[in-house]
Amino acid sequence: MTQRQSPTATIVDIHTHVYTPLFMEILRSRDAVPYIRSFPPDTSDRLIILPGEDSPDTPATSRGRPIGPDYYDISKKIEFMDTHGIDISVISLANPWLDFLPTEDALRVTQQVNDELNNLCASYPGRLYAFGALPLSGSVAEVIQEIKRLAQLRYVRGVIMGTSGLGDGLDDPRLDSVWGALQETKQTIFLHPHYGLPKEVYGSRQDNYGHVLALAMGFPMETTIAVARMFLSGVWDKWTKLSVLLAHSGGTLPFLAGRLESCILHDRHIMEKGKDEKRRTIWDILQNNILLDSVVYARAGLKAATEVAGSDRILFGTDHPFFPPLTNEEGGKEEQWLSVTMNYRAVQEEFEPKTLDGILGGNAIRLLRLE
Amino acid sequence: MTQRQSPTATIVDIHTHVYTPLFMEILRSRDAVPYIRSFPPDTSDRLIILPGEDSPDTPATSRGRPIGPDYYDISKKIEFMDTHGIDISVISLANPWLDFLPTEDALRVTQQVNDELNNLCASYPGRLYAFGALPLSGSVAEVIQEIKRLAQLRYVRGVIMGTSGLGDGLDDPRLDSVWGALQETKQTIFLHPHYGLPKEVYGSRQDNYGHVLALAMGFPMETTIAVARMFLSGVWDKWTKLSVLLAHSGGTLPFLAGRLESCILHDRHIMEKGKDEKRRTIWDILQNNILLDSVVYARAGLKAATEVAGSDRILFGTDHPFFPPLTNEEGGKEEQWLSVTMNYRAVQEEFEPKTLDGILGGNAIRLLRLE
Repeated sequence: MTQRQSPTATIVDIHTHVYTPLFMEILRSRDAVPYIRSFPPDTSDRLIILPGEDSPDTPATSRGRPIGPDYYDISKKIEFMDTHGIDISVISLANPWLDFLPTEDALRVTQQVNDELNNLCASYPGRLYAFGALPLSGSVAEVIQEIKRLAQLRYVRGVIMGTSGLGDGLDDPRLDSVWGALQETKQTIFLHPHYGLPKEVYGSRQDNYGHVLALAMGFPMETTIAVARMFLSGVWDKWTKLSVLLAHSGGTLPFLAGRLESCILHDRHIMEKGKDEKRRTIWDILQNNILLDSVVYARAGLKAATEVAGSDRILFGTDHPFFPPLTNEEGGKEEQWLSVTMNYRAVQEEFEPKTLDGILGGNAIRLLRLE
Repeated sequence: MTQRQSPTATIVDIHTHVYTPLFMEILRSRDAVPYIRSFPPDTSDRLIILPGEDSPDTPATSRGRPIGPDYYDISKKIEFMDTHGIDISVISLANPWLDFLPTEDALRVTQQVNDELNNLCASYPGRLYAFGALPLSGSVAEVIQEIKRLAQLRYVRGVIMGTSGLGDGLDDPRLDSVWGALQETKQTIFLHPHYGLPKEVYGSRQDNYGHVLALAMGFPMETTIAVARMFLSGVWDKWTKLSVLLAHSGGTLPFLAGRLESCILHDRHIMEKGKDEKRRTIWDILQNNILLDSVVYARAGLKAATEVAGSDRILFGTDHPFFPPLTNEEGGKEEQWLSVTMNYRAVQEEFEPKTLDGILGGNAIRLLRLE
């Protein structure tokens, strides 16, 4: 990435996570997933975020992941950006965000964390924007109150959300007014996985494969099912301007969109139930409501993503600080990360220079109004 | 499809299911999934194959599917082929195949069903070939015995398999000699989903969506996880010639291959465990061991499939007799099926004539040795 494609292109990373001071404090104070703790004799902190990582039987090398300053020190984020030629980052809290807060704390803590995010952006003006978090364990009224407040924060351009919504998925009718408030305030939802799939689907030898099945399969499949449920429940038929950025190039939605369409057209139950409904197709929504990041690590995924969404709706991202190089020497000079260069190389090889400039930054600047 | 792309091209359907007489008899005699039964007052037969379809609470329009002569009358298969311009079909038993047989019946019944398949092919010489079934609920020795017998049957070119293998997935070391026997006899495995994902992942409103989530999401995700487990367990590192045809263009594997590769390269457990191993990459296996059908219903999926496997390893299929048109009049003249024309149109629009001829038939003729 040292070699800029175009001297005028601005590079924007829209998929990059931070742990704010208060979020770190909360994680350190907990003793159930998600939490941060060291496992003696090793004295370094490990971050345990998935239920499947929390078993004492799990090999130490698979029990969560090391957590260091890359996760919580914003100057390390800026250093990472400089190392990779990234001009602007749209930061977001990492999963599972604040989904786990007790109801009575939800609004207050979420407001504090969102203010932290906005203040981090203010400390590097022009280089950082943010997706805020929502108090989803609070009341719907509180969620909407915070959406309206976020719209007033200078550096916030939308919200990051998981797939559980208010606890019952994104096809939950209780979310209706939440979608409405997000559409009305022109905030983009960054939809990101966390919960994965039930461990049983990975079989009895899954520990042999470290985190691979949960991260490479479970995460994108979770996203795909969540957005399919949103679509099938008619969210976009009602909220026709609602904008959703899907993590990891849509999970697997670009690949499965044709099968989804065909299964709908061949389902007798849907046909009989929907006789009088005018339903928007998945193609329509992919081209008008859905944005995709470019975090798919290969040209095959980018080809499918471009075909369904158009190259003007694909946005570069890194997933920092996850997937650090395994070979990085502690304290050594920061090198470019393989996880970033894999994605960067894929977009560089796949797209013509002008299209590439859009994907690397222009699309994000336009769609997220980054001045 | 009435308009042939080339007058010389032979069209081959490699994804097309049949219910042989004995298989029908077994399904009619059962009262647990899978089974065939009518639900009064409706007197027509319905086929219940998925556990999720078997609840009395399920709406009647979602309880299994109607089953008629398209499923079990081979003359209807030939009629379907003629209607769609298909010259050759490589027929296979439909899921869940014979996975459910009592151990003591497994070999005997499987042999009978495979003989039925071979005889059906013989009754339409040159138009039908078959993937056989395996007695997977029997002993490994019986499975291997049947693989060797299948290699001698004139019209059999491989086996169809689900994702459960001997009951514990396709990364089960007990399958090692099964893979060996299949490689040695040059038979292709047609890997097909059946079990889907646990219902809980579809949430509390899934009945609103008929079969859509289970079929559009669960099926391809099941296939992807199964083949990822095979790959991660090193099956192709040992059996370097083992050929596997993946249903539905690989489930979602072409889209996720980059992420799978990245997750492996960034997993500390795999790195430390595999220090001394020489592991083939997913790219190598996609280009040398995996074949993909074209049953993905849109160009986006075909683009990803072609990028990872190459257009000379993509094979046309229909998934007949599943996904019949909902509007077909009983007893009316057979019309072309939407599920078929969606796939046909996608390949026709995506590929140049010469490549198209390969995908429509040439690749299957070459790779499956259809004389």
